[in-house]
Amino acid sequence: MNVINDGIDDKLFQYIQKSIAETPYYQVLSISLSRIGAGIAEVTVTSIVEHTNPLGLIHGGLIMSLADAAMGNAVRSLGIRGVTVDCSTAFLSPAALGEQITARGRVLKSGKSLIFAHAEVWAGEKLIADSKASFANTGTITY
Amino acid sequence: MNVINDGIDDKLFQYIQKSIAETPYYQVLSISLSRIGAGIAEVTVTSIVEHTNPLGLIHGGLIMSLADAAMGNAVRSLGIRGVTVDCSTAFLSPAALGEQITARGRVLKSGKSLIFAHAEVWAGEKLIADSKASFANTGTITY
Amino acid sequence: MNVINDGIDDKLFQYIQKSIAETPYYQVLSISLSRIGAGIAEVTVTSIVEHTNPLGLIHGGLIMSLADAAMGNAVRSLGIRGVTVDCSTAFLSPAALGEQITARGRVLKSGKSLIFAHAEVWAGEKLIADSKASFANTGTITY
Amino acid sequence: MNVINDGIDDKLFQYIQKSIAETPYYQVLSISLSRIGAGIAEVTVTSIVEHTNPLGLIHGGLIMSLADAAMGNAVRSLGIRGVTVDCSTAFLSPAALGEQITARGRVLKSGKSLIFAHAEVWAGEKLIADSKASFANTGTITY
Repeated sequence: MNVINDGIDDKLFQYIQKSIAETPYYQVLSISLSRIGAGIAEVTVTSIVEHTNPLGLIHGGLIMSLADAAMGNAVRSLGIRGVTVDCSTAFLSPAALGEQITARGRVLKSGKSLIFAHAEVWAGEKLIADSKASFANTGTITY
Repeated sequence: MNVINDGIDDKLFQYIQKSIAETPYYQVLSISLSRIGAGIAEVTVTSIVEHTNPLGLIHGGLIMSLADAAMGNAVRSLGIRGVTVDCSTAFLSPAALGEQITARGRVLKSGKSLIFAHAEVWAGEKLIADSKASFANTGTITY
Repeated sequence: MNVINDGIDDKLFQYIQKSIAETPYYQVLSISLSRIGAGIAEVTVTSIVEHTNPLGLIHGGLIMSLADAAMGNAVRSLGIRGVTVDCSTAFLSPAALGEQITARGRVLKSGKSLIFAHAEVWAGEKLIADSKASFANTGTITY
Repeated sequence: MNVINDGIDDKLFQYIQKSIAETPYYQVLSISLSRIGAGIAEVTVTSIVEHTNPLGLIHGGLIMSLADAAMGNAVRSLGIRGVTVDCSTAFLSPAALGEQITARGRVLKSGKSLIFAHAEVWAGEKLIADSKASFANTGTITY
């Protein structure tokens, strides 16, 4: 899949793409980056059986993982290394096997020591989760 | 691994064990049940490379998945089908590849329509996450 | 202050205005409704010494109270009696004595048993808090 | 009411007591400290009409204010100035006018830049809320 660069420095873009591709947790869950811009990131999966519970519904853990990935990479789009402090997710609707699930993260405030972000998770046209997180700023990304 | 039954009905115990073993999301992440009692559940993983980010640290998504699994199964230990409404997790310390990670969930209140639970996640002797969740009561488990 | 009705039934509008005016907790904190529409509500205070800590900063409890009030009344704008299940607030920036503080709540999903909402809290032009909440649907408002 | 000092330095104890007594937000809501020890704090109110909604139930904003106060003062019991980063509260049961409401806060982890805490809120013998918060460490209390 082509990843859209919505205007960040190309070297940072390459760094983030490579980092996500080399993250084993994303590989095992088939999570990939689809878009990144200054303070925003979008990650996506086509849901597969590995994401489900015995009822064929997508496990909440995957939804939270996607939301965290979208927000964490929105932080990195600013050239900041962030570590998640707290993440809170509301589950609005279930999602089912086969649906395309996309989390869109956005930085709300980037401070010297803390960064705040928000994410929405969509299954196609349906909003399935609302998530927010805070991150500790642990330094500048060097690439 | 032997799963400890801390006093729930044996048929319910068999049902929950089978359900967890048949959950593809738990299989892909190697999450397994280690203990269940009335209103409590403990799930565990030995962390493997599939749980990590490129720094060799355990991804927050795995920690949230474990916490949700521990609380969700604490709800099921009461014979209740629960659907996660909201889950909030604080990340106290990082965990590293190879550590045994255990989430202990506990039901705080089981109401007619809503159930509230709390979980702690431990890497060995170190508390790494504090989590809470609410669940919608969607009926009685039949087994 | 004039309260703006952004298009809800006038009787419901009167009911909500009266209910807020008669809520002792809002009276003691000088919280008032400024706008309500279908699925949205805005509440506001001009911060006074009663809202502060000894440093003259606005106490987080007031911010959370405003966010909850904005989301709870966004739920009521749909003619639904809601009870807060869980409320989570991130504090992006401090606010100081004398600032006009406004919380804008919005319903994200209104289900048969659960309603999900989101709120932003502003001190003038500065976003100071990001909040989300879930509510139990306890029936229809009769007026 | 007598405030119990569970073993912190007496000068810090005097400092915290004075600070709470001089906090206008606590005065207007009649919130007072009842106990403080190393990493723990307990705050309490006897609920009065100013805490209620038109149904005579205690407003969620008061519950969240109490939880935040208990956790914030548990942080201060360690000699640390903390600023709330994120606070999340689950509402397990309603509380009614006239009940004694007590929040018990406890520090889970005190790090160099972040502190994590947890609180339970009780109305008499009934657990009514479960709350967790993170705080930024903004320095040492001097007294």
